[in-house]
Amino acid sequence: MVEPGDETVGRWLRELGPVALLRALTGQAAPPPDATPQRLAGCALRASGTDPAADLAAAARLGGRFVCPGDLEWPGQLDDLGDARPVGLWVRGRPSLRTWALRSVAVVGARACSDYGAHVAATLGAELAERGWTVVSGAAHGVDGAAHRGALAAGGATVAVLASGVDRPYPRAHAGLIERIAGQGLVVAELPPGAHPTRGRFILRNRVIAALTRGTVVVEAAYRSGSLVTARRAQRLGRFAMGVPGPVTSGLSAGVHELLRGEAVLVTDAAEVAELVGGIGDLAPERRGPLVDRDLLDPVTARVLEALSAQGGRDGRAVAREAGTSTDEAVARLHELLALGFVARRGDHWTLVHPACREGHARRGGP
Amino acid sequence: MVEPGDETVGRWLRELGPVALLRALTGQAAPPPDATPQRLAGCALRASGTDPAADLAAAARLGGRFVCPGDLEWPGQLDDLGDARPVGLWVRGRPSLRTWALRSVAVVGARACSDYGAHVAATLGAELAERGWTVVSGAAHGVDGAAHRGALAAGGATVAVLASGVDRPYPRAHAGLIERIAGQGLVVAELPPGAHPTRGRFILRNRVIAALTRGTVVVEAAYRSGSLVTARRAQRLGRFAMGVPGPVTSGLSAGVHELLRGEAVLVTDAAEVAELVGGIGDLAPERRGPLVDRDLLDPVTARVLEALSAQGGRDGRAVAREAGTSTDEAVARLHELLALGFVARRGDHWTLVHPACREGHARRGGP
Repeated sequence: MVEPGDETVGRWLRELGPVALLRALTGQAAPPPDATPQRLAGCALRASGTDPAADLAAAARLGGRFVCPGDLEWPGQLDDLGDARPVGLWVRGRPSLRTWALRSVAVVGARACSDYGAHVAATLGAELAERGWTVVSGAAHGVDGAAHRGALAAGGATVAVLASGVDRPYPRAHAGLIERIAGQGLVVAELPPGAHPTRGRFILRNRVIAALTRGTVVVEAAYRSGSLVTARRAQRLGRFAMGVPGPVTSGLSAGVHELLRGEAVLVTDAAEVAELVGGIGDLAPERRGPLVDRDLLDPVTARVLEALSAQGGRDGRAVAREAGTSTDEAVARLHELLALGFVARRGDHWTLVHPACREGHARRGGP
Repeated sequence: MVEPGDETVGRWLRELGPVALLRALTGQAAPPPDATPQRLAGCALRASGTDPAADLAAAARLGGRFVCPGDLEWPGQLDDLGDARPVGLWVRGRPSLRTWALRSVAVVGARACSDYGAHVAATLGAELAERGWTVVSGAAHGVDGAAHRGALAAGGATVAVLASGVDRPYPRAHAGLIERIAGQGLVVAELPPGAHPTRGRFILRNRVIAALTRGTVVVEAAYRSGSLVTARRAQRLGRFAMGVPGPVTSGLSAGVHELLRGEAVLVTDAAEVAELVGGIGDLAPERRGPLVDRDLLDPVTARVLEALSAQGGRDGRAVAREAGTSTDEAVARLHELLALGFVARRGDHWTLVHPACREGHARRGGP
């Protein structure tokens, strides 16, 4: 019934809760005191065109679901958006959005990027994924697509946040890529199935990318590029804004350089990104205990953890065989377990993070 | 008698003064109390090989001179080096080193630079010179040479600080370039005529470049490059350290990026450099009154100022004709007058900075 990022409706939602607000906006109860007739008419018009049951069915046909605040899978960091927080997110893919987003970085940039930009984005995507980071981007041409492809090629975790419905891959030329992301990772949209992207929706989509991740890396952006908006939004949300420099003779790096002359941090590779957003260096997951109790894991994830021997490492296929899941399913769960601090990854090789080993780290770090 | 940057001898020089120190080191007076026999023997050995009169004659044959602390031409900012301050500098060229150094920026970088680095250095040299900045560098292959050539091509002011004597152009392939710099600008050396460069002397030369200028821009530098040492030295001296980014795929930009991840400022063109080191923007010289009283100008400089009509602009050749000097001489003096705030420059076009116009600026900037 509302466009993404509508802060007035966001405030009503916060004040009244979803059920009372729906009644208030559809004439079943008194409208919010500060609602103008024009706005109420707009909501009523849009409400007449919605069919939530059909939306849920459309998403379900693609293996999707609707996740909203209060759900176990809701990424709590989106609450930092305040009243511009999404009402909910449509999600396609096996892993838990909440868990994957715990250890995620956005890689964004120019659609019409140079070969240099595409190379850097793909390398960054692959190497961040290798290090156990979830690569979040917008599935656009250029930098976005290269970052997703890099992460996929490394067998890593990647999330595409669309400005359209999860059943409306955009750009069309990336339909295959978006399908692969839905298979190996997650495709997320704020708008319901069937929704088409508009200029305004791209900009509002960017706030979700900024809020979902620990930091945003801009790889090539001309002056006034939307990627710069994402990075600055990330910064205002207390996330890290990062930029990859390029030749000063390239207009496609001019926006990034402008960003770097402000508060953003210059990064040249995945190690530097991971060091910054990881806070305590790239060894962070190994040095930390699990973030949640083992008993709180969902049954499939727990089975995958069970399947991973403490004695040695295994690849995703071997874990899948042992756990009785598909390889994609097992790898998705392993990435969750990685984000939660239960397992470590070296390329295709997964190992259990042994409590004794963690203690050893703690002892060495102690007085 | 001593190598550049010898802080022990520098301290003795500060404590005793030059005449007493010379007597103390040559056995004509008691040696400094903390002088070891070994050090005294070293000084005596080197003293036996020096011939100051011959050095002065060799410099004079090239139109050179020796400038030391207390001289009118001594650039006072070198005193920031403390006991590592040069004992003096050998100078070739018409302009006043002190005046030219007032508004100077160092542009340094890799010897084996890429085409990109050479292009950026030449453009930066030319555009800084166009803006009335003196471009200081080390006359080396690669970035240094490109920066000097850019400044020369723009008819601007440039200073080469050598690690050898002013009569020993190094590298040999740059003998022609160094000769052109001596003709249009200044060639400066801490070591006396006849001295050859060594690895250590290059590093010690860099401290003079860092101290002489308001800031150091590094254009391409691999890890552990000497240019990074210059920039970090500049920073410790309270000058600006700046770096020009490049592709992260280029090892020749890796050192610059490392610098930029520290405290150095990312710059992409001359306007950004000038804005930073100029403090109050690129219009600084026009907005400020002259730095010294007109009566304190040396006679030739005063004649050149006289020759410049307040009514309109003139090029260097016209000013030279009017002042009865060579064009190189006139342009050198005009650059001094520029640094001192008497004149402004747009390309080849020189104009008097009119007092009324300066007042106008002041009024506009006032409350």
